[in-house]
Amino acid sequence: VAENPYLYFARVTQLWRRAQQQSAGPRIHPSAVVDPDAHIDPSAQIGPLCVVERGARIGAQTVLKSRVTVSEDCVVGERCILHPGVVIGADGFGFAKDGERWEKIEQLGAVRIGNDVEIGANTCIDRGALSDTVIEDGVKLDNLIQIAHNVRVGDHTVMAAQVGVSGSTLIGRHVQIGGQAGLIGHLAVADGTMIAGSTNVIEDTQPRSIQKGYVATPHLEFKRIQAVTQRLPELKRKVTDLEARLAALEQGAGAKEGRTP
Amino acid sequence: VAENPYLYFARVTQLWRRAQQQSAGPRIHPSAVVDPDAHIDPSAQIGPLCVVERGARIGAQTVLKSRVTVSEDCVVGERCILHPGVVIGADGFGFAKDGERWEKIEQLGAVRIGNDVEIGANTCIDRGALSDTVIEDGVKLDNLIQIAHNVRVGDHTVMAAQVGVSGSTLIGRHVQIGGQAGLIGHLAVADGTMIAGSTNVIEDTQPRSIQKGYVATPHLEFKRIQAVTQRLPELKRKVTDLEARLAALEQGAGAKEGRTP
Amino acid sequence: VAENPYLYFARVTQLWRRAQQQSAGPRIHPSAVVDPDAHIDPSAQIGPLCVVERGARIGAQTVLKSRVTVSEDCVVGERCILHPGVVIGADGFGFAKDGERWEKIEQLGAVRIGNDVEIGANTCIDRGALSDTVIEDGVKLDNLIQIAHNVRVGDHTVMAAQVGVSGSTLIGRHVQIGGQAGLIGHLAVADGTMIAGSTNVIEDTQPRSIQKGYVATPHLEFKRIQAVTQRLPELKRKVTDLEARLAALEQGAGAKEGRTP
Repeated sequence: VAENPYLYFARVTQLWRRAQQQSAGPRIHPSAVVDPDAHIDPSAQIGPLCVVERGARIGAQTVLKSRVTVSEDCVVGERCILHPGVVIGADGFGFAKDGERWEKIEQLGAVRIGNDVEIGANTCIDRGALSDTVIEDGVKLDNLIQIAHNVRVGDHTVMAAQVGVSGSTLIGRHVQIGGQAGLIGHLAVADGTMIAGSTNVIEDTQPRSIQKGYVATPHLEFKRIQAVTQRLPELKRKVTDLEARLAALEQGAGAKEGRTP
Repeated sequence: VAENPYLYFARVTQLWRRAQQQSAGPRIHPSAVVDPDAHIDPSAQIGPLCVVERGARIGAQTVLKSRVTVSEDCVVGERCILHPGVVIGADGFGFAKDGERWEKIEQLGAVRIGNDVEIGANTCIDRGALSDTVIEDGVKLDNLIQIAHNVRVGDHTVMAAQVGVSGSTLIGRHVQIGGQAGLIGHLAVADGTMIAGSTNVIEDTQPRSIQKGYVATPHLEFKRIQAVTQRLPELKRKVTDLEARLAALEQGAGAKEGRTP
Repeated sequence: VAENPYLYFARVTQLWRRAQQQSAGPRIHPSAVVDPDAHIDPSAQIGPLCVVERGARIGAQTVLKSRVTVSEDCVVGERCILHPGVVIGADGFGFAKDGERWEKIEQLGAVRIGNDVEIGANTCIDRGALSDTVIEDGVKLDNLIQIAHNVRVGDHTVMAAQVGVSGSTLIGRHVQIGGQAGLIGHLAVADGTMIAGSTNVIEDTQPRSIQKGYVATPHLEFKRIQAVTQRLPELKRKVTDLEARLAALEQGAGAKEGRTP
């Protein structure tokens, strides 16, 4: 028997996939637009209708499925998988106010992606303003995720679909983030933090803490608040009851003393 | 007079559109990348820069607008419309832990889409892990929606933009889901459920129930809680007032009995 | 010294970018699919694998990066930047009920975008049902945003990533909207409104108001409610304490009067 049946299952699916695999097709699909000054490892595969711009680097055995963009000077490591519609290195969202107008801050950094990273369909990772946006080794990102400029995501962190990470937030290693969660900018998310789906994280987190709620609060405190919130109608009834009983009592006391309260 | 004026209006727009329609262009745009082992019905239209992979099937009168990907072995029924940027059949998000690392679970299922389905721009529907992800007849999905692996969406269900449905959740027929709502995995959403925008559904739902709130609760209970929540500052004032009045009363009672409380 | 250092910084990044810029490449990349009846200004640039459909207009000095779709009859003004994966003019989400089925309402309007607009990667702006969806001058939209049919966005308004705006909502000038915020349909958002990230706006807003919370409420009221919500466990303890003290008091009063309460 396998010690870790889920891992054993993963290995079986990989064997099955390899047995089924037909010829891999051309290394660079003829419909892809690859700049002559991009560096594609001879063992990498660039799928149909991808764009790889000047100065970009694609590592060994990395696969870009169809319709992926890797912009100028961005680097993708080895054994990565980028699913259809992924955009690496669009401009970060940066503007300075000039009276009524917004003036563009040119985004002069790039994106650097480590090894063994998988990135889901239509996910976007923006280039940095001055330095780079960084995704470290073994990170797994689901579909439709937004990673803003100058974010750093630590080794083996995973994010479910539609998560949004704002600019300059630093995410540690082995962090897990549920779907549709949102992280404001300039945060430090500690190693091993677990963030529940749809949670809004607005403060730095402690290592291995569990974050949960509309405004993220540590898990235990959230459960206490949540428990009371669910009983608010009961609480209100109690207070109304208290008021009536007190009024009666006060009236009684006033009457005994021969005066109106 | 029309019995159902909105439906009458829909029919008029269709007439207008048909009257305006110029020649439809080529059946398969020359810029599209269609695998020789894909099956395209002769009455289907494949727009510019689409990708249809090996073993995929596109049904009669279905239209893929520009830049759509339909991956290996995925099936799209008849009279469907897939808008630009749609990704059908990217890998579901599945990994097993191997010590510090995440090991990929190959996604061996596909996506099956029924007839008369419309799918909005940049929406993603992932392939299943072992069996297929299924979208039944008449389903309408708006833009930027995430449908995870092994989800099933029942006949004539509609979802507004940016909804996220996690893995293996089963959604019934005639369900309506508002924008940005999120459904956790392995749920059963009953026929006719209505889920308000931005609601997080974390429990199975009853047929024709209305779900609403940061954590979804049945509509009436939500309204009761919501009503109290809005009056929390008033509730707190009342309690403070009660405390003062009680303290006075207790002091009075103590004084009468010749002792300090 | 600069009066506005941030603006000064923006200008320096622009100088740097211009100094670095190599030759711009072809005006219309040969891989782009541009309809002969589209109107492209001679100074505009259309990147690799873009689609510009019949009747669309692209203004002077506007840049479409890679893999952008501008659909039939949609208009983009001057000096705009559209990042990879943007979809302008997919059909708005409109259906009329016909018994069990949904009948499509053809979307006969288009999208009109002003000058100096920037639109982030994979963002979608749908065409209007009868009249147009309108984005005015100087608007800046981040990645993965949904703008539904017949929305109007006023001059110099900015939205962070993953915001969703439902149909027919009118957004004023100089509005700022944080990431993942959601606006229901048919709203009027006044000039200068600030909407915090992840906020759900379900009512019209006042000029220069600050909106915040799961259900958006004016900022000050939200802070009051939020403050009490955080102290709910304490409030509940107080009420329980009150009940005990009152019961003792009532019992004492009853005993004095020679009866059980």
